[in-house]
Amino acid sequence: MSNISNNIPEKTIERLSEYRRTLIRCHKQGIKHIFSHVLAGMHGITAVQVRRDLMLIGFSSDTKKGYDVDVLIEFISAILDSPSAMNIGVIGMGHLGQAITKYFNGKGLKLRIVASFDVDADKVGTTIDDIPCFDMADFESAVIDHDINIVILSCPTRVAESMVVPIVNAGIKGVLNFTSKPLNFPLGIVVENYDITTLLEKVAYFVKEGESGDAAE
Amino acid sequence: MSNISNNIPEKTIERLSEYRRTLIRCHKQGIKHIFSHVLAGMHGITAVQVRRDLMLIGFSSDTKKGYDVDVLIEFISAILDSPSAMNIGVIGMGHLGQAITKYFNGKGLKLRIVASFDVDADKVGTTIDDIPCFDMADFESAVIDHDINIVILSCPTRVAESMVVPIVNAGIKGVLNFTSKPLNFPLGIVVENYDITTLLEKVAYFVKEGESGDAAE
Repeated sequence: MSNISNNIPEKTIERLSEYRRTLIRCHKQGIKHIFSHVLAGMHGITAVQVRRDLMLIGFSSDTKKGYDVDVLIEFISAILDSPSAMNIGVIGMGHLGQAITKYFNGKGLKLRIVASFDVDADKVGTTIDDIPCFDMADFESAVIDHDINIVILSCPTRVAESMVVPIVNAGIKGVLNFTSKPLNFPLGIVVENYDITTLLEKVAYFVKEGESGDAAE
Repeated sequence: MSNISNNIPEKTIERLSEYRRTLIRCHKQGIKHIFSHVLAGMHGITAVQVRRDLMLIGFSSDTKKGYDVDVLIEFISAILDSPSAMNIGVIGMGHLGQAITKYFNGKGLKLRIVASFDVDADKVGTTIDDIPCFDMADFESAVIDHDINIVILSCPTRVAESMVVPIVNAGIKGVLNFTSKPLNFPLGIVVENYDITTLLEKVAYFVKEGESGDAAE
């Protein structure tokens, strides 16, 4: 993440997103209250961390029964969610783009995928998972027509860099980049570069370290 | 990430993985040397951060021409990679599982997807993207046969929790969980819970904050 400074740390924002999903599952199961150490345990972190995160956003209504699940969901939502819906476009409807679209569709999030873009003539003009697919050549006009604020970049890595200029020109405010090429954007555009190879290499590294630790014991 | 403590911070491991991919691209372009501020700029971070990360792994051969690209690739690889190959299984061959498999296949990584698992009779027994798909009922024996160390969990969220016991029983050492349900595993198993909703909600949050910042100016 880059370009925007803020009072709430990035990692806290990530955890708030995770807490909310857990709390929504609790709500669906009929759970009305939850203790910080229970919420912490569900995320493999400490209760101190949970309490610190909630203190940072000004939530302090911890009772003898724990946090009120519904109140906490609403409180976190007021922090994370925009008052108006954010519309999202997916650039590149290969396997990853289609997986992401299917993943978010019907999740009932405030974030809605409203359009997708590709250069493949077999995809352009069709509807994939209920989302219209436009020609990348029409990107700028489709962004205006559909009031798109954020794009997910799931195109092949070799063309990732060529997407920067159209994204800037179209007035996009946030980019979630899933290609293997980290991209830089002008100040004012939020970028999250995420190559899933990083996650897998991280897991593999700590597995390796764990194994060598075992051997040393 | 949980369960394994280590001297090199998680975030440094993530960045080393990213540096290496950038350096491999540089190598392919015929670039022989790179300055820390150039490498930093390609990742949207400071040169100080790059130098600190490389100092942490004991790399200090900065010359007047910058880092030697090939030497640095080898140095990072010695840190990240296991001496023997790590074999990976993908649990759940829906859109996400297939996207991930296609993504990693042919990337030439030390990490190799060698098997996939599903419960769908149309998939079991077939080969998807050159990877054999086994019945989840045969998970334990397939893990032994294919010497699988790490699994990627891309099954539907509603069945994620039911995968914990088979994963533990099969002796898996690392789990990259892409479902929306954070999972806990016994000590000694490395887990990275990653719901891509978190990334998208983070980008949306900083876009929102950036916009309200603009309004306040």
